[in-house]
Amino acid sequence: MSLLVVGSTALDTIHTPQRTYYRLLGGSASYAAIAASFFDDVKLVGIVGSDFPKKYLKLFQQHNIDIAGLQIVPGQTFFWEGEYEKDMNKRRTIKTILGVFENFRPTLPPDYQNVHYVLLANISPSLQLHVLKQLKEPKFVAADTMDLWINTALVDLKKLIRQIDLIIMNDTEAQTFTHELNLFQAAKKIHRLGPKYVIIKKGEHGSILSSHNGLTLIPAYPIERVKDTTGAGDSFAGALMGFISSQEGDPSTLLPQAMLYGAVVASFCCEGVGLQRLARLTIKEIDTRMNLLRNMLCF
Amino acid sequence: MSLLVVGSTALDTIHTPQRTYYRLLGGSASYAAIAASFFDDVKLVGIVGSDFPKKYLKLFQQHNIDIAGLQIVPGQTFFWEGEYEKDMNKRRTIKTILGVFENFRPTLPPDYQNVHYVLLANISPSLQLHVLKQLKEPKFVAADTMDLWINTALVDLKKLIRQIDLIIMNDTEAQTFTHELNLFQAAKKIHRLGPKYVIIKKGEHGSILSSHNGLTLIPAYPIERVKDTTGAGDSFAGALMGFISSQEGDPSTLLPQAMLYGAVVASFCCEGVGLQRLARLTIKEIDTRMNLLRNMLCF
Repeated sequence: MSLLVVGSTALDTIHTPQRTYYRLLGGSASYAAIAASFFDDVKLVGIVGSDFPKKYLKLFQQHNIDIAGLQIVPGQTFFWEGEYEKDMNKRRTIKTILGVFENFRPTLPPDYQNVHYVLLANISPSLQLHVLKQLKEPKFVAADTMDLWINTALVDLKKLIRQIDLIIMNDTEAQTFTHELNLFQAAKKIHRLGPKYVIIKKGEHGSILSSHNGLTLIPAYPIERVKDTTGAGDSFAGALMGFISSQEGDPSTLLPQAMLYGAVVASFCCEGVGLQRLARLTIKEIDTRMNLLRNMLCF
Repeated sequence: MSLLVVGSTALDTIHTPQRTYYRLLGGSASYAAIAASFFDDVKLVGIVGSDFPKKYLKLFQQHNIDIAGLQIVPGQTFFWEGEYEKDMNKRRTIKTILGVFENFRPTLPPDYQNVHYVLLANISPSLQLHVLKQLKEPKFVAADTMDLWINTALVDLKKLIRQIDLIIMNDTEAQTFTHELNLFQAAKKIHRLGPKYVIIKKGEHGSILSSHNGLTLIPAYPIERVKDTTGAGDSFAGALMGFISSQEGDPSTLLPQAMLYGAVVASFCCEGVGLQRLARLTIKEIDTRMNLLRNMLCF
């Protein structure tokens, strides 16, 4: 099958204590699509401006990502500039330019509308809803979000959450969204708003799946040198949904393994700046690390 | 077999946002001994003053803990008073009185000296070394420690670490001890100082075992209402070593399962104030929660 990924496609300038990386390929959909491409065919929905480097289009194509749904329009690509502090765990935004993203209301190409598996990567909930409405027979829809939308678009976010199968949030987002410090209680509250599956990401501490089967606890893959955590959550969601769509089985059975794949791909993501490491990642490397991770869980 | 536990035995006064609990049974050895008692016979080494309530001696005895090595001397029992902040994750010390602990140099009873399995629970490294020296044929020795000793008794702590099989630290202690933020690199540095097995506890985020077999990642048992985290680390270590000594097999094979038991018993510990919950815990409850935890790890 194939996976539809909608989200932001951006150019990121990242300052690390060592050096500055200019206009890297960024955005939730870019990370998610490339992460998913190791598992299944991906159809990308997004928008970029006329300044978007051709080499990034080529990178998508090298990963067999269908970019018929990636609009290229006059204007500036969504731009983000951020700076890491010394310990690389804290990051601050220096500049954000929405550019062509400001008026993005994508109309899905006809063959996109029939896709069964969908990842609504981090983007405004109104855009996620707009895409969701155009799908003719969605079987399994996951959405990611961020604190910005919880704080500024809560009504739309709640409306979205009622209509999807899986919501993915990180720990602080889940706490903010539910006003509940305890993550297991937070997950319960989110279930009550609609989704059958709730995943709470805890960064280096792994992730939690909550479903009618109870909880599943997934560790992060241990890495010794974190270079850049940008996009790690998007890569986790992308790999997870790529695996689910490639298998087409019962998601409740597939999700734990899918999350392990998500953890593995996210760990590679953190080992390079931006998409550097994922761009040259191989399926063999993923499988090797997946086996290593499984061995770390042999109780 | 049996497990020798040495550490502090104390009276704790704990202020929570709701109420104050006066002169509860506390101390690393109390928690560790009771946690271990669900798995094996325990021999306790410690010291208390003439103010130590008889009901606490009775509690040890009800758990079949041999208290021949618990000295009762004139004077005041080690006393700790602490206060929790609103979110229960932050705690500050109000008062510490060493009391009879100040001049504690235990001489082990003869039958204690022949014990094979030993937990040197959190106490000054010089005391841990003093006990270790008296053991005639230790097979597997674990030690726990705390930031205080890293900051004030580093030479003794390093001397101790060279002579034991397993060192248990929490994340910030491992970082302080090794000057290394990354926990996996910290574990490697600790191995170089001697111990074959290194466990790094991460509280609600689980624990990591590092050994010649590589890493093993152990989750914490998810609990919805944390009442008091005092003694959770000591209970983890106690249950872990109680299980190891009860099995007498190859520790490298037993440790992952032992850590799961540690996680389960520690989770019960957090559900009551002080030793409240552990005091009335049953083996059946431990087994039930162990099965639940295993089911959460079914990938």
